[in-house]
Order: sequence, then C-alpha cells, then structure tokens
Amino acid sequence: MMHTTIDFRSDNCGRAAPEIIAALNAANTGTALGYGGDTWTADLQARLAQVFETPLRVYPVPTGTAANAVSLAASCTPFGAVYCSALAHVNTSESNATGFFGGGTKLVAIDGDHGKVSADALLREIEAAGVGLAHKSQPAAVNLVQATDMGAVYGLDEIADVSRVAHAHGLAVHMDGARFANALVTLGCTPAEASWRAGVDVLSLGVTKNGGLLADAIVVFAPDVATSIGFHLRRAGLVWSKMRFASAQIMAYVEDDLWLRLARQANAAAAGIARRLEPLAAIRLIAPVQANELFVELPSAQALEGLQGEGFLFQRRGPRLARFVCRWDSSETECAALVTAIERQLVAETSAHSGGIRP
Amino acid sequence: MMHTTIDFRSDNCGRAAPEIIAALNAANTGTALGYGGDTWTADLQARLAQVFETPLRVYPVPTGTAANAVSLAASCTPFGAVYCSALAHVNTSESNATGFFGGGTKLVAIDGDHGKVSADALLREIEAAGVGLAHKSQPAAVNLVQATDMGAVYGLDEIADVSRVAHAHGLAVHMDGARFANALVTLGCTPAEASWRAGVDVLSLGVTKNGGLLADAIVVFAPDVATSIGFHLRRAGLVWSKMRFASAQIMAYVEDDLWLRLARQANAAAAGIARRLEPLAAIRLIAPVQANELFVELPSAQALEGLQGEGFLFQRRGPRLARFVCRWDSSETECAALVTAIERQLVAETSAHSGGIRP
Amino acid sequence: MMHTTIDFRSDNCGRAAPEIIAALNAANTGTALGYGGDTWTADLQARLAQVFETPLRVYPVPTGTAANAVSLAASCTPFGAVYCSALAHVNTSESNATGFFGGGTKLVAIDGDHGKVSADALLREIEAAGVGLAHKSQPAAVNLVQATDMGAVYGLDEIADVSRVAHAHGLAVHMDGARFANALVTLGCTPAEASWRAGVDVLSLGVTKNGGLLADAIVVFAPDVATSIGFHLRRAGLVWSKMRFASAQIMAYVEDDLWLRLARQANAAAAGIARRLEPLAAIRLIAPVQANELFVELPSAQALEGLQGEGFLFQRRGPRLARFVCRWDSSETECAALVTAIERQLVAETSAHSGGIRP
Amino acid sequence: MMHTTIDFRSDNCGRAAPEIIAALNAANTGTALGYGGDTWTADLQARLAQVFETPLRVYPVPTGTAANAVSLAASCTPFGAVYCSALAHVNTSESNATGFFGGGTKLVAIDGDHGKVSADALLREIEAAGVGLAHKSQPAAVNLVQATDMGAVYGLDEIADVSRVAHAHGLAVHMDGARFANALVTLGCTPAEASWRAGVDVLSLGVTKNGGLLADAIVVFAPDVATSIGFHLRRAGLVWSKMRFASAQIMAYVEDDLWLRLARQANAAAAGIARRLEPLAAIRLIAPVQANELFVELPSAQALEGLQGEGFLFQRRGPRLARFVCRWDSSETECAALVTAIERQLVAETSAHSGGIRP
Repeated sequence: MMHTTIDFRSDNCGRAAPEIIAALNAANTGTALGYGGDTWTADLQARLAQVFETPLRVYPVPTGTAANAVSLAASCTPFGAVYCSALAHVNTSESNATGFFGGGTKLVAIDGDHGKVSADALLREIEAAGVGLAHKSQPAAVNLVQATDMGAVYGLDEIADVSRVAHAHGLAVHMDGARFANALVTLGCTPAEASWRAGVDVLSLGVTKNGGLLADAIVVFAPDVATSIGFHLRRAGLVWSKMRFASAQIMAYVEDDLWLRLARQANAAAAGIARRLEPLAAIRLIAPVQANELFVELPSAQALEGLQGEGFLFQRRGPRLARFVCRWDSSETECAALVTAIERQLVAETSAHSGGIRP
Repeated sequence: MMHTTIDFRSDNCGRAAPEIIAALNAANTGTALGYGGDTWTADLQARLAQVFETPLRVYPVPTGTAANAVSLAASCTPFGAVYCSALAHVNTSESNATGFFGGGTKLVAIDGDHGKVSADALLREIEAAGVGLAHKSQPAAVNLVQATDMGAVYGLDEIADVSRVAHAHGLAVHMDGARFANALVTLGCTPAEASWRAGVDVLSLGVTKNGGLLADAIVVFAPDVATSIGFHLRRAGLVWSKMRFASAQIMAYVEDDLWLRLARQANAAAAGIARRLEPLAAIRLIAPVQANELFVELPSAQALEGLQGEGFLFQRRGPRLARFVCRWDSSETECAALVTAIERQLVAETSAHSGGIRP
Repeated sequence: MMHTTIDFRSDNCGRAAPEIIAALNAANTGTALGYGGDTWTADLQARLAQVFETPLRVYPVPTGTAANAVSLAASCTPFGAVYCSALAHVNTSESNATGFFGGGTKLVAIDGDHGKVSADALLREIEAAGVGLAHKSQPAAVNLVQATDMGAVYGLDEIADVSRVAHAHGLAVHMDGARFANALVTLGCTPAEASWRAGVDVLSLGVTKNGGLLADAIVVFAPDVATSIGFHLRRAGLVWSKMRFASAQIMAYVEDDLWLRLARQANAAAAGIARRLEPLAAIRLIAPVQANELFVELPSAQALEGLQGEGFLFQRRGPRLARFVCRWDSSETECAALVTAIERQLVAETSAHSGGIRP
Repeated sequence: MMHTTIDFRSDNCGRAAPEIIAALNAANTGTALGYGGDTWTADLQARLAQVFETPLRVYPVPTGTAANAVSLAASCTPFGAVYCSALAHVNTSESNATGFFGGGTKLVAIDGDHGKVSADALLREIEAAGVGLAHKSQPAAVNLVQATDMGAVYGLDEIADVSRVAHAHGLAVHMDGARFANALVTLGCTPAEASWRAGVDVLSLGVTKNGGLLADAIVVFAPDVATSIGFHLRRAGLVWSKMRFASAQIMAYVEDDLWLRLARQANAAAAGIARRLEPLAAIRLIAPVQANELFVELPSAQALEGLQGEGFLFQRRGPRLARFVCRWDSSETECAALVTAIERQLVAETSAHSGGIRP
C-alpha cells in the first residue's frame, strides 16, 4: 500500500516542459515594445504560418476559455447560436463565457458520440433553427473539441463533414484544440490537415495542458474573423503588455516538434493503461482512449474510494465513473501503479461479494 | 552621437526581475491542483494578508486592464457610473473594457490636477448625478490611479478625502495601482496606509510594469466585493489553470521587499533626470515627477525629433511633449545620456534661432 | 368549401378588447408627468395590490419578452443559470434575450411533461450544478410558463413543489404568465393563490395575448428583485414616457374581471374543439387542453395541407402536427367550422387509403 | 393669482393627438399576423418611403431610448465610440443604454454650441482617437440630436458638414430625431433634405413627444445598418406582437401632414413666448428658441419659486435656469399666462430689491 499520492487529476496539474521555461528565461533580455509589438511575437507569427503551411494570425492568450470565448465572439453576432456537444468544455466548464463575450450568444447542444458533434445532427438542427427569423437564435458557429471531452479524437473526415455542413449554411468552424497536439499525434497527419484543410476557421491552440505554463493561443485561418480579434482581446484585458514572454512560450512549444513529443508521451501513457485495463471484465472504458484521457467505469463506488484511499488523485464523474488524465510527465511507474491498484480493487470487490460481507 | 537605442517608452518594455523568473522556475515541481487550488496560491493569500496587515482576497490576473475591469464590474451595477480622471488608464487605454465587463457601466470624467480625481469635484458630480433616477447612470465607484497617468502621486490625505466622499454616497473606491509600488516608496508609508486604511476597497496591484512578467493581481479589502470576483474572472477566461506559476511570481514580487527595491530604482532614475532638467529654462516638466514618469515639454517639435534621431525611444504626447518612463533596470548611464541629449537639443535649438535659419 | 380565412394562428393575431381601447381613449385627457409619475400608474399599483392581495410592484412593459428578460436579469447574476422547460418561450422564441439582458445568463433545459419543469428534475439539476464552483453557471432562477407552451396548466401543487426546491437552493421563481389569466380560470383559484402564495417571486403578466394591445406587465412580489427592475427597464429603453396609456390598458384589463372573462371565452372555445375532436380515433391531442391552445396530430401532412387549402390559418409544428390557438373573440362558428373541416380531412384521408391510391 | 396648474414640464406630459387615437381604434379589426407581418406595417413601410423619397426600412419601437440604443448598436462594433454632444439625450438621460445595447460602446462628448456637435471638433477627436489601435475605443458613429437638447436646430449645412467628416472616416451618422418634426418645420425643407440627403444613415423618428402615444420609430436609410436591426430589436424585447397598433399610430402621424401641423403649433407657442420675453432685460434666453423649448435664465431662484408657487410646472435646470416646453396642445392662454407670470416675478424682484427687504 502506497502512502504518496499519484496524480491523474488533469493535465493542467502538471509541470511545464523545461524547454518552455528555458525559452521564457531566454526572452528576458533587452527591451521590447509592449502588447505584441515585439520581435518574439512577429517571429511566432511567421513560425506558425510555416507550421500550419498557410497565412494565419496567432494571438497568445492566458487561457483556453479566453481563446474559446474570443474565437466564438469574433465568429458570431449577438443573436447567434453556437452549436456544440453537450459535453463540450464551453458548455460545461467555462461559466457563461460564450454568452458574456458574445453579448448573449447561446450554446445549443448537438448529438454525437463521445463528446463529438455529428454532422447529421448539426444539419438537422440548422434546418430547424429558423434562419432569418428574428425570434430565433441564428446559426453562427460550430464548436468542435479536439480531442473531445471524452478523450476521443475526431477523424479528418468527421471534421470535414461537419465543416461542409457548417460552411454551406454560413457558420464558422471553431476547434477547441485544448488537446490539439494529442489529437494530432493520434491522427498522424500534419497540423494543416487537422485544421484548415479540414475546414477549421479558427483554432484554440492548447499549450498549457501539454507542457505549457501560462499561455495558450488563438490561431485564425479565416481572414474575416481575424479582423476583430485584436479588439476583442484588448477590451477583455487579454493582451499582455510583456507579450514576448507569452510568445516565447508558444514558439518553444512548436520548435523541434516539442508539442508532438510531449503529446506522444501523454497519449502513450494513457494507451498503456487502456491496453492493460481492457482485458478486465469488471471494468469498462466508456469512450475510446484516443488521446490522454481515460473514462473508466468500475464495478462499485467502493472501488473508486479504494483507489482514492490508496492515494490516487483523479476526478469522479459518476457514482462508479472515474476520469484519469495522463500528462506528458506521467511516468511508467505511476501508470503501472494505477493499473495494479485497480486490479487490487477488483479482487477486493470479488472477495467482499463472495464473502457476503456487505449487507 | 550614439547609434544604439535607449528605451524610455514604457516600464512594460523592460525585463522581468531575475528573482521573479527564478520563482517561476522554482514552482515547476510536482503536480498541483488547477485554477488556484494549489499551495503557492494559498501561501500568497496568507503572505499578502501580512503585507497589507488585514484579511483580504488576492486574485492573480494576466493584465492590469483585467484587474481594473473586473474590480469595477464587481463594484458596480450595470446601471452604474464609474468616476475617474479623464486621463485615467481605464478611460484612455483600455478599449471599452469597463463597459464590457460591467454590462454598460459608464465612465464619467472628474476634474483634478495631474491625472488625479479631486474630492470636491467628485462630490459635486455625485450631488448632480440624480441618485435614484432610473434615467441617470447611478454613482457606483471611483477609480484612482496611483501613481497617476501623469506621474504624480496621491497623498494619503487626498485618497482619504476621495474615499470619504465616495463612501458617504455608497460608492466603492478602486485604486488602479499599476504603479502602486512606485507610489508607495514615494509616500514612504506602509502598504496598509496607502490602501485600505485610506479607504481603498479594491486594488489593482501592478506587478508587470515593475519587474513582473505575465501577472498582476486584484487585492480585495471589502468582503462584499470579493464575493463575486472569482465568478467574474472565470466567465472572462481570466483564471489560469496552472495558477501556481502566476502566484509564484507575485509572491516573489513582495518577498524581501523586492517590489520596493525595484520601484525605488525606477523612481530614483526619474528623479535624477528631473533634478538635472529642472534648471533648464527652455524645458518644462508639466507634472510633478513623483514616481517613474516624466512629462517633458521641449521648446520645439524639432527637439523631439532630434532626440528620436539620436536613438532615444519615448512616447510623443503632443507636438512638443515627450513622456519618458524609467524602468527598474534603467541605468544611470542611460539616464545621463538622455539629459545630455536634451541639453544638446536645446543648444541646437538656440543656435538655429540665433542663426535666424528658421522663418 | 369556404373561401374566407379562419384564423387560429395565435392569440396575438386578434383584436384588442373594446374595454381596453376605451380606457386608452379615456386616458387622453390633461397633462401627466412622464415615465410612470402619473396617477394612472399609481392607481394601477394600488389596484393590482388589491387584486393580488399583497404589496407588490407593477411595471408596464411593451412585450412579454421584455417582461421575461428583465424579470430574469433582475433575479440573476451574470454567472447565473436559468432553469426552464426546453419548450419554454424564453428558450425557443425570444432570440438571445435572456443572455443579453443578463450579461451572459445561460438557459438550462429541465425535463417535465407538456412544457412543464418537473420539481424532481430541477432538484437533480441543481444538485449536479456545482454551486460555488466558478467554472459552472450558478443556479439562479427557474422559469415556469403558465399556461405552458403546450397548452397545459401547472397545478398549484406543482408550482409549490418547484418553488420549494428553488427557494431551498436560493433560486428565484419566475412565472412567464403570458397566458396567466387562461391558467387562472382553469385553476379556479385567486390570483394570489396562483402566484406568490405558491412561491412565485416575479410574474410576467400577459395582457396582449388576452385582449390587450401594446402592453404587458411585470409584477414583482419579492422586494429584493424589485429594487433594480426600474433601472433594468430604463437602460433597455423599456419605459414609456407617456406611461399613462400603458397603465390605463392594464387597469382596464383587470377591472370588472375583464381578464377572466376574456380568458374564459378563449378557453371555452379551445375546450369545445377538444371535446369534439377527442372521440375521433384518427387524431391525437398530444397535450391536455387546459387553456386556449390545442396541439393536434393529424393522420398525414396532406390533412394539414387540406385544412390550409380550405382557408384555415394555424401553425404547423411538425409534419403532422398543428397548433390551433383560440382567442377571446374566436367565435363558436369558427370553432365549429374547424372541427367540421378536420372531420372532412379524416374522411378524405380514409377514402384515399381505402381507394388504395397511396402506395 | 391662479390656482390651477399650467404645465410646461415636457412634451411627453401631453395628450395624444385625436387622429392618432382614432387610427388605433380603426386598426382594431379582424386578425393580423404578429410581430410586423401585418398589412398596417407593410403600408407604413411604403408610406414612409414616399414621405422620405427613398427606399428605407422603418421599425416602430416603444421609446426614443430604444430607437437610439438600437440604431447605435447596429452601427457600431462593441469596441466603438459614439460621438455626441455632452448634452445629448443618450449621454444625459438614457441610463447606460448605449453601452448596454452595444456591448460596452462608449460615448465621447464633442464640443459644439447649444447641444450641437461641431464638425471641426468631431474631426479633431477622430484624428486623435487612435484608429486601428486596439487599446483605443474605435470611432464608430456620431449622434446628432435634432432639435438639440437646448432647443436649437441644426442647419442643413451643419448636418452635412458633420456627415462629411463622419463618412470620410467610416462613421455612421445617427440622428436622434425625438423632435425631428419640430426641426423640420423650422428648417422648412423636406424630410429627405433634413435626413439622408444631408448624410443621415439612421434616424430615431420621434412621435411620442409630438402627439404620439406609445410608439416612436427607427428609420434606416443605410442598407447595411438595416440588416441587423430586426434582430437587435427582437433580442431586446422591443418588437410588439400586435404591431399593427404601433404601425397605425405612425401612419396617422405622417398622414395629411399631421406631424408638421402638431409641430408647428408647439413651435409657434414657444416662439410666441420667446418674442415676448426677449425685450425683458432681466431675463436671458440661453439658447436660440428654434423648436418648442425655451431655456430661460431668471434673475433669481426666488423668481423660479414664485412661478412654481403660482402653479406653473416646468423643469429647473440650474439655480436660476428654467426649461419650458411647449406641446402641440399648449394653448395661447397658457402661454400668455406664463409670460405675464414671469413679468410679475420681475416686478416683485425689483420691489424686493428696492425695498431692501432681503438681508
């Protein structure tokens, strides 16, 4: 029985990658014009255009919520509806940010598997939405979370299908890429293929959860959306004056494929756990493990409490449902310990039942 | 004649203090609960309560604009008016942030010297405001910038006078302390005396301009204002998930009086320049130099262009008006060079005039 | 076969009651202070307090949407969630008004029959909402539509059950009473019993749909909600300067039980149609007819088109679903004509099928 | 000495014109599609296009504040600044409506005489505004009040001058025509000349103050502004379901030049008073009397109180400053009584001083 804690709570509980900290140290030299008028930010602009193989605009921002809310506000009118999964982070975990930034913009849940938006369900909703009728929220944008909030990854064809429906009806396609790198390594495609080539207009590029520190980014592919984003950010107090320290983080993140390496480590850790849990009849993975998250249904609440009692930290998402998140620095030892502990709980479970101890 | 640039553009153009970078490095260890549920943030809470000698709530935020807008939104109804100097940062340099966060909150300019709000002018405005009349913006808060946007510092009695008027009429007192440390060392008093003891309810505590990096803070003294601030921040995407890296910066900022040492350096640099400019008949300091900013009127636009031509970077605030800002790391050499260059421009000016070259 | 149209589209397509027009004519005398400072408005205040047997505040407003949005905004923080039926007017037919007035306030759908909010479902949602967690929309108010958007009427016990859950968790209870009078005559109770005695804090009192003209009203029972409503209304341009003409309408509406008489006529018309349709095996009333609306499922889309072809005006709510709304001035002849026409469609339907014409 | 009251408080204290009431009665026939889908509204559309000699869109709205706020919101981004006179109704008397509807839109006061915006001052402000800089509110629209809040009337050349500056910089021109008809009869030109031909993009057409009842109107000349106005209105609860009763009022207002006849009566009443006050040395008209308002400075506060004591109702705008507003139904007797009473006060004043009664 261990007495230290092992942390699977969230990828935002982890450390920053040393390369990113180092970049931040390195940027602390000389003076630089504020609010993004510095060379680090200009270089980042050029670098991401290479990485994504297209002209684009990048805006470092403090948080993923800020990235999402501003991306959507810049894509919508105040009368607009944003379509998303009921499980989407914007719907479950960002207070009323979408409505606040958008002046009332409404979130409308669309069906789909494992936190995805289904293109068919989206089409049905748009067709029933009452386009042009002033008493109806007007279809304005669709939000795709990649990887989803259930740890699944949209296939490129799935993104393209949703984008086709969206664009055919004048909606912008926003990708909440809080775990974009995790999805990217799963898809095994280029950043361009995973975003604008599949129809994405604006991307919240997650950095924090994958080894970052204090910055994420908005990456805008659609020129008309880009026009207003700088103004949206400034009026919301989201533009750092010492921007170089944010830009330097994001630059380091994509240099030498750091983001892919970090994501590969986290995904591999999750996949390893999944591989060893799948054979166990008593537990169920309720969504495909395609990124760095596992949603595991155990046979009883006692089993979850047992794990917690052993020092494992994770989120409880239901009476018997646990979410485990692997970080870039989750070690093989920690992952193995988790699997072993789960197995131990299953055994305890069986004994308890066979022993008839519980009433 | 120099060929390198010497930068007096803004204190946000400068480097971060090594101590703050170091703290950030040091915080990169182990896992920590997100969104402020970490020990760094808890420690910061306790530490600032000591520093300010009172129970309080502290919220690290990305920018001063965010600190101001959220502080004011939490202090106002959407029907409210915020009284401020016409020169206040919230009025001149924060887009429509106050109105955005407040749901329409209106800024109303109040007279005063050198960017200050005069208690008498405030009283007159409140008395004429139409309290209780629904067609009138209702007096809700007053915003004091310390040091002011003209580089002056409110005396403790001035703050107390404004606070007395404000509180007598139910207004909250918000201090935009983007340069609070600079004011503090000028006042030579305790942080408590410069804030809540003089009536301040909520303080935007500037860190970035004084050696910080990517974080400022909201410090709330009034318990009722504190209730909603966490919610305001979250819906605005202003709460970092890896909060420890923000809290660590602010902790380092106040440890061992770092903030005071940095501010003293910047103030001393400005005072040194002022001392050497004051005897020069041809130039005029249009506001008292009480912090780290100088507003210098030169005899001609040509003189300003001459300085720029020599490689000095600064803001032009009028045809003949320059703003020079000293940073914690502005060197004596740089300051001396500026004075010498100004003197050189004055000589050039005189020769030009005596030579009758200009019409 | 008729060639004129018979209108069952909506109760807002109808005429105003002559008594209300007359009151408006009568108010056109002398001068009166603007914005509600007139005697008609003062008298209305007193009169409604009698009608509802409690101190209250009444605010005439132009529309039901305005009444709903302001009532909810005054009951919520901007971080709040408003619980309502998925079918509620605020959710389906008021653009983004709730979010706009509330600064982002979010609507959350709660299960229930026939457009109702179930107390049990509400309780489950509140318990899962994450009270106190800043990333979660905070439970703030519940919206009950009386009669519901499916033409059903909440029983007094149902209102009381929802209110009990709401108040136990600090939520305000808002009743969208666009058809409050229709519900009242069905319930056969007093206005007090149907509102504040059952727990309602603030009521959107519908007038327009029941013989009104250009005004509805907000009736506030909870003193703390009342504080801000006047300010909410004024900043939204919802306060008429010649208020007397609005107050006079509402006064006439409740005088001599006019509202009850008008509602009784509309309800009786709907009940009469329902009584004659119920025996018909081929059609289905998908919700109880308890007010003045009928939701009728016909055997085919052709049957609906047949009715339209005969000159009947009504809303199509699905391929085979029609909504018929009776007004205070829907005549017995019109209602009988509708039933006869539906019967005629059923016969046509049967012939067509028996003739084997359709595949 | 009279004992009844004579009312010069505001034109919104007056009666509705009988023709408008009659139109409202006449509209109470048959059924009509809601929310503006009726024939009265369609006819109004066509009729106003004739009156203004151009294609346009008209939207009846409950109040002038609603008309102004929606017109401006539809003309601005949330980062925008609206330029107006410091005395403009939007700035002094509409709570925070402009900011609320615009998502933070800021009002910026521009100099000018008697409540006007000067084209030169506007140009200076735009040039100094920082176009394209995200930390600055972006110039978006200019608001002209016609007649102004001081009772003056913009000349056509003045409107054209402001419009030229505005359009050259991409700003929309909004005219708050709460007293548009009063200005029109003073100018003696066509509605077209007084509006779009002089550069006005969107007009708040006042009806209420000039014999209306419960409706004003937005008249949009610029097609791009018109696109969103219907949506803005609906989300704000500003679209009546029984729209015909609003449209019928406005139709009656312009039929047979009713609006001009009513305005001529009100203006003539004011002009008559002005003509008889001008010779009196002891009083001063502080603004030209070009519409239906007089701003009269009397020699003492006692004189104002004397008038009030005699039963005259009016607004006090300063210790010695009174505002008198004439309505379309202000009678010659009432106007003569006011002048006589003022003369009586002046005599009392003189006796008091010569008699040395006051300390």
